[in-house]
Amino acid sequence: MIRVAINGYGTIGKRVADAVNAQPDMEVVGVSKTKPSAEAYIAAKKGYPLYIADISKKEVFTKAEIEVAGSVGDMIDNADVVVDATPGGIGASNREMYEKAGVKAIWQGGEDHNVAGFSFNSSCNYNDAIGRQFVRVVSCNTTGLCRVIKAMDDLFGVRKVRATMVRRGSDPGEVKKGPVDAVVLNPVTIPSHHGPDVLTVIPDIDIVTLAMIVPTTFMHMHVIQMDLESGGKKEDILKAFGDHPRIGLVKGSTGIKSTAELKEYASDLGRPRADLWENCIFEDSIAVIGSEFYCFQAIHQEADVVVENVDAIRAMTEIVKDPAESIRITNSSLGFNAI
Amino acid sequence: MIRVAINGYGTIGKRVADAVNAQPDMEVVGVSKTKPSAEAYIAAKKGYPLYIADISKKEVFTKAEIEVAGSVGDMIDNADVVVDATPGGIGASNREMYEKAGVKAIWQGGEDHNVAGFSFNSSCNYNDAIGRQFVRVVSCNTTGLCRVIKAMDDLFGVRKVRATMVRRGSDPGEVKKGPVDAVVLNPVTIPSHHGPDVLTVIPDIDIVTLAMIVPTTFMHMHVIQMDLESGGKKEDILKAFGDHPRIGLVKGSTGIKSTAELKEYASDLGRPRADLWENCIFEDSIAVIGSEFYCFQAIHQEADVVVENVDAIRAMTEIVKDPAESIRITNSSLGFNAI
Amino acid sequence: MIRVAINGYGTIGKRVADAVNAQPDMEVVGVSKTKPSAEAYIAAKKGYPLYIADISKKEVFTKAEIEVAGSVGDMIDNADVVVDATPGGIGASNREMYEKAGVKAIWQGGEDHNVAGFSFNSSCNYNDAIGRQFVRVVSCNTTGLCRVIKAMDDLFGVRKVRATMVRRGSDPGEVKKGPVDAVVLNPVTIPSHHGPDVLTVIPDIDIVTLAMIVPTTFMHMHVIQMDLESGGKKEDILKAFGDHPRIGLVKGSTGIKSTAELKEYASDLGRPRADLWENCIFEDSIAVIGSEFYCFQAIHQEADVVVENVDAIRAMTEIVKDPAESIRITNSSLGFNAI
Amino acid sequence: MIRVAINGYGTIGKRVADAVNAQPDMEVVGVSKTKPSAEAYIAAKKGYPLYIADISKKEVFTKAEIEVAGSVGDMIDNADVVVDATPGGIGASNREMYEKAGVKAIWQGGEDHNVAGFSFNSSCNYNDAIGRQFVRVVSCNTTGLCRVIKAMDDLFGVRKVRATMVRRGSDPGEVKKGPVDAVVLNPVTIPSHHGPDVLTVIPDIDIVTLAMIVPTTFMHMHVIQMDLESGGKKEDILKAFGDHPRIGLVKGSTGIKSTAELKEYASDLGRPRADLWENCIFEDSIAVIGSEFYCFQAIHQEADVVVENVDAIRAMTEIVKDPAESIRITNSSLGFNAI
Repeated sequence: MIRVAINGYGTIGKRVADAVNAQPDMEVVGVSKTKPSAEAYIAAKKGYPLYIADISKKEVFTKAEIEVAGSVGDMIDNADVVVDATPGGIGASNREMYEKAGVKAIWQGGEDHNVAGFSFNSSCNYNDAIGRQFVRVVSCNTTGLCRVIKAMDDLFGVRKVRATMVRRGSDPGEVKKGPVDAVVLNPVTIPSHHGPDVLTVIPDIDIVTLAMIVPTTFMHMHVIQMDLESGGKKEDILKAFGDHPRIGLVKGSTGIKSTAELKEYASDLGRPRADLWENCIFEDSIAVIGSEFYCFQAIHQEADVVVENVDAIRAMTEIVKDPAESIRITNSSLGFNAI
Repeated sequence: MIRVAINGYGTIGKRVADAVNAQPDMEVVGVSKTKPSAEAYIAAKKGYPLYIADISKKEVFTKAEIEVAGSVGDMIDNADVVVDATPGGIGASNREMYEKAGVKAIWQGGEDHNVAGFSFNSSCNYNDAIGRQFVRVVSCNTTGLCRVIKAMDDLFGVRKVRATMVRRGSDPGEVKKGPVDAVVLNPVTIPSHHGPDVLTVIPDIDIVTLAMIVPTTFMHMHVIQMDLESGGKKEDILKAFGDHPRIGLVKGSTGIKSTAELKEYASDLGRPRADLWENCIFEDSIAVIGSEFYCFQAIHQEADVVVENVDAIRAMTEIVKDPAESIRITNSSLGFNAI
Repeated sequence: MIRVAINGYGTIGKRVADAVNAQPDMEVVGVSKTKPSAEAYIAAKKGYPLYIADISKKEVFTKAEIEVAGSVGDMIDNADVVVDATPGGIGASNREMYEKAGVKAIWQGGEDHNVAGFSFNSSCNYNDAIGRQFVRVVSCNTTGLCRVIKAMDDLFGVRKVRATMVRRGSDPGEVKKGPVDAVVLNPVTIPSHHGPDVLTVIPDIDIVTLAMIVPTTFMHMHVIQMDLESGGKKEDILKAFGDHPRIGLVKGSTGIKSTAELKEYASDLGRPRADLWENCIFEDSIAVIGSEFYCFQAIHQEADVVVENVDAIRAMTEIVKDPAESIRITNSSLGFNAI
Repeated sequence: MIRVAINGYGTIGKRVADAVNAQPDMEVVGVSKTKPSAEAYIAAKKGYPLYIADISKKEVFTKAEIEVAGSVGDMIDNADVVVDATPGGIGASNREMYEKAGVKAIWQGGEDHNVAGFSFNSSCNYNDAIGRQFVRVVSCNTTGLCRVIKAMDDLFGVRKVRATMVRRGSDPGEVKKGPVDAVVLNPVTIPSHHGPDVLTVIPDIDIVTLAMIVPTTFMHMHVIQMDLESGGKKEDILKAFGDHPRIGLVKGSTGIKSTAELKEYASDLGRPRADLWENCIFEDSIAVIGSEFYCFQAIHQEADVVVENVDAIRAMTEIVKDPAESIRITNSSLGFNAI
C-alpha cells in the first residue's frame, strides 16, 4: 500500500483524498489544513488524520473540537508520496521541505512547470513519469486539451490546434470571486498561456489558445478546432472517443445542451460531488468540415485532474508500469460510470 | 411493502423515487415521463420501470433505447399510493384518474389546497393525515416555514410571524429561467401568498410574508422574525433546534455564511445530490431581542418536501401511526446525517 | 424630411426612434405598442405619437393615462418608411400590410432573409439598397461579423473566417430569461446559423461560426480568427480599424478588459443608454500569427443595428446615395464619440 | 461660487463631480486619481483638472497621454470643500491633511461616524450641518433608510423599524467581486450594523436590521416594516411619498417589478448613467396591515448619496440655510425628473 499525504485539503485536495482512499493499492495517511473550517470537519468525519502547517495553532483547532494529528512535517515523514494541493504559488515554496524529507511529490497546474521539471498527463506521457521524484499534474484546462489533442493526433495527425476556453468565474463553493455580470477577457492578449502549457506535455504541437471568464460556477467550456493531417470521419471519431477512458460523450438523445444540465445528470448518476473526471464532449457538436475538426467540450475544473494525480502516484512509485492498467484501476475504483 | 408510483419523474419526483426506494417498508413500482430525456435514462439506469402518459409515443422512447413498461394508467393500477410530482397545475387534472382508480394520491405544493382538501407537514399534522385518500404536501417554502413556526410555538408561543423569502431564480439544472442580473419582486404586492398557505397547515397563526427572486440556483433564504408570547433564551432555542429531526443548525465554527458554502458542505458530506432535507438555520443568526426572535434559514427547494412525501405515504396507508416514528425511519433510511 | 414610423417600440424600436429623431433629414411620425408599459410612458414623455395594433384596446391605454394617436394602420399611412422592430417572427406577418400600403419597410435580423429578399449592412452593401422597398437589417451578431470581415477583406483578403459568439443570456431589462448559472450551447451543433447569415451580406466568404449563451446581460463577445491572403501588420490593422466609422478600438491604457468595464466607460462618456453602436475591438487582443488574424470584439446587442437602420432609411429613400456620407451623418447626429 | 475638490474619482466621486458641476452655485476645481485608468480619461474628456496623490507618478500619467494638474495637496489649496470619495478606510487617514489645510471636508459612509463626528442626511438633519468643517454623508443603505423612516415618523410616528437589506454583490463596472451563484449572509449575525448607523442620523429610533448579498449589480432591495404610533392610510402615504423630493414612487401601471426593469426605465428617461438618486418605492407594495407599514424600496448604491453630498456642501458653506431650498436646487440642476 502506497502511503499518500495530501498537503492542502481544499477543492482539489479533498477530491484527491477520496480518490486515493478508493484505490486498492494506496491509502491516505493524512491531510492538512491551515485553519478550522467546514473542510476540516469533513476530514474528521471521513476519518482522515488532520495535520496542520503551524503546530502552534493546534489550540485553535482543539477549541473548534477538531483533533490534530501533528504537523505537516510529521505527515510527510509517514508518506511515500505527497500530493501538494495548496493554493497556486504556495506549492513551490514547499519543494525544499519535500527534498529534505526525500519524499516524492506531486504539484498541481497552478505551479510552474519548473517546480517539478516534468508535467504529466496519464493519456500522454505516463511512461516518462515512471520512477520520478517530482511531477506536476497540469491544470484542468491543459489536462482537457491534452486528452483530446492526443486522441485526435493518434487518429489522424494534427497540424494545428485553435482553442477558446470559456472559463467559470468561481468554483461553486466560492462566494468572493466574480464576475457577477460580465465577460472578462483573461488575458486580453492573444494567445493565452494555455497553449504553451500544453507544450510541456505534448511538444511540437502548433497551438493557439484564447481565454475568457464568464459568470458561472460549474465547468469550463472549450471550443476546439483542429486542422487534421488527413480527413477524419465523424463515425471514427465517435468510436475513438467512446472507447477513450477519459473522454465521455454527451449523447444527443439526453437533450443535454449545457453545463448545468450536465451537472444535474452527474448528480443524478450518483457521482460523488457530481464530479465529471472525463472530458465531456458533446456528441452532436462533433463536426468534420473539410479537413477541420470541431467540437465543444466541457471540463469540470474541480475534477478532471483528480484521476491524473492518482495515476501519477502509480507511475512515480512504479507499482503499475502500464498506463492503460493504471487508468483502468483508477476509473473502476471510482465507479467512473458512463455519462 | 407499500407500492408507490411516482407520476412525474422530474426535480421532485426523482428524489421522491430514490427516497421511497431507500425505505424498508415501501417500494417504487414505477415512474413516469412524457418524453425521452436525461432523466428517462437515469430512471432506466436506476432500474425504475418507466411508464408514459401517452402510450402512442412509445416508439419515440424505443428509438432512444429507453424501455417503456406501459401507460401511466397501468402504473397506477399497480400502486397503493401515487405521488404526483407533475408540473404545477397539471396535477389537479389527474385527480379524476386517481379517483376512478381508487388509489391514494399525494400532490405537491404547486397545486391548490383544494386538490386534496388537506395540506400536510410531518412536524405539524401527521395525525390528521392518517388513513386519508388524498393529501397535498405543501411547497418547499411553506414546509420550511411550518417547521420553524411549529417548533417555536411549542417552545414559547408565537403571537406574530413576519417572514421574507429571498428565492432562487431557477433550479441548478434549469437553463431557460432567469433572472440573470436582477432582484424581482414576486409578488410586488405585500403580503405574499405564502402566509395564507401556512394557514392551511397551522391555522390561527398571525403571519405576514413577502417574497422576491434573485439570480441564484441553490436554496431559498428566509428571514424569520417572530413575536413570542414569552421571552426565549438563545440556549433553549439552540437545544430545541438541535434536537429537532428536520432542523439542522449550521455551526458558526464551520465558517459557512452562504448557500453556496452550505451546498459544498452537503456535497462533501456525501449527501445524494447534495440534498438538504432539513431547514438549515444559521446558529450565529439566532437572536432574541426583547420578546422577538430572529434567524436566517436556508431552504433547499428541491429537497425539503421529499421527506414529507415519504412520511405522508406512511400516514395515509396507516403503516406507521406515530409521526416521530415515521420521521425517524425516513431520516435514518436516507442517512440523514447531521450538518 | 423622411417620415419614419417605428412598429414595435421595444429594445431596438425605442433606440431607432431616438436615432431617427436625432437625424437632420428624418422625423418620427409614430411608434407602436400592444399594451401599456414602462416603454409606453417613455414614448409619451419623449413626445412620440403612440399607435396601437388593436384599436379596440384603446381604453386600456386611456385608463393608464397614455394617449393613443390611432391604429398602426393610421401610423403607416403617414409614413415613408416603417421600421419593423416587432418581436422575431411577428415581422414577417406584417409584410402584407406594408405591401398593401405601398410603404417602404425595414425588418430586423430576427426575420429570415426572405422577408425582404435583401439583407443590409452599411459598410458592405449600401449601394445595393438604393431605392429598394424592402430591406432586412441583419442581426447584431451578423452586423458585427460583417463589419470586421469586410474591413479585413479590403485590407488583406480573407480566405477563411472562424468565429465563436459568446452570447449574453438576456438583455439588461429582461428578467424572465436565463440562464442563471450555466453555459448553454446554442446550438449544440457546429456550425451555427451565423455563418450562413453573413453570406446573405457578403457572399463567397468561407466562414464557420459557433455560438453559446452565458449568464450576462451586456454585450456578446466574439472570438474572431481569419486566415489572410497576405500577412498583415498589426500597425496597419490598428490604423484601418481606428479610421473605420463603425469600429471602436478599446485602448489598452484604459485598463478595460471586460464587457462590464466597457459599459461603465460608455455610461461615463454620456452615451444615451450607454449604447455602443460600434464593434468594440480590444486593441491589445489584435494579433497576427503567421498569416492568421485574431481578435476579441464585444458587440452591444441592443445598439449596433440601430445605426444600420438609419442608414438603410437613407439608401432606400435615396436621400443620400453615398454610403460614407450617410454613415457620417448618422454618427455625427448621435454624438458617436470615440471610445 | 463654492470651489469643490473631489478626492477620489471613482464610482461615487465621478458622480459627485458631475452633480457639483451641474449646480449654479458651485464649481469643480479638481478631481484626483492614483493611476491612469478609464476614469482618468473620462476626467480629461470632461475637462476636470486631474490631480494625483503621489506626484512622483506624474510620468506614468503623461505616458498614457493624461495631463496632470498637480498634487492632491495643490488641489486642496484651491478648494473651499473637499469631497473625500476615496475607498473605505482611506478617507480617515486624509483627515489630518484636511485639518492642516483648514479646508472643509465631507466623507462617505464607508468611514466611521467618528471621522467627522457628524453624520448627515439632507431630509433629516441639514440644519445641524450648518457651518460645520467636517461632515460624513451616511452610506447608500443608511441614506435610504433615513429618508423613509423620517418621512413615516413625521406622518404617523414610528415605534419600531425592522428592515432587511438584500444587497447587490458588486457594482455594474466591477468584475472581481462576487458572488456568482449564492446568497451570502453579511453579516450572519443579527442585527446588522445598519440599524446603529441610522441612529447616527435619527437618534432614539428602535430599529433592527439584517443584511445579505446576492448576485446582482444594480440596486439594493430593502424590505421595510414599521410599527406605527397611529394607523396610517395607504392614500396618505402615497401622497406624502409622492410629494417627497427624494422618494420616487414606481407606478404599478408601468409593470416594473424588478431592479432591472427600473434601471431600464431610468436609462430610457435619459438619466445620466441611469442614476436613481431617490428611494424607489414600489407603489403596489405599500401596505398598511393593522398598525404596521410595509413596503419594498430599491436603492441605487451608486447614486442616492450623490445628491446628499451636494446638499452637505451648501449646509457647511452656509450658502443656503433652508434644507428644502438646497434640495430643490440640487434636484432641479440634475434634471431629477419623476420616475
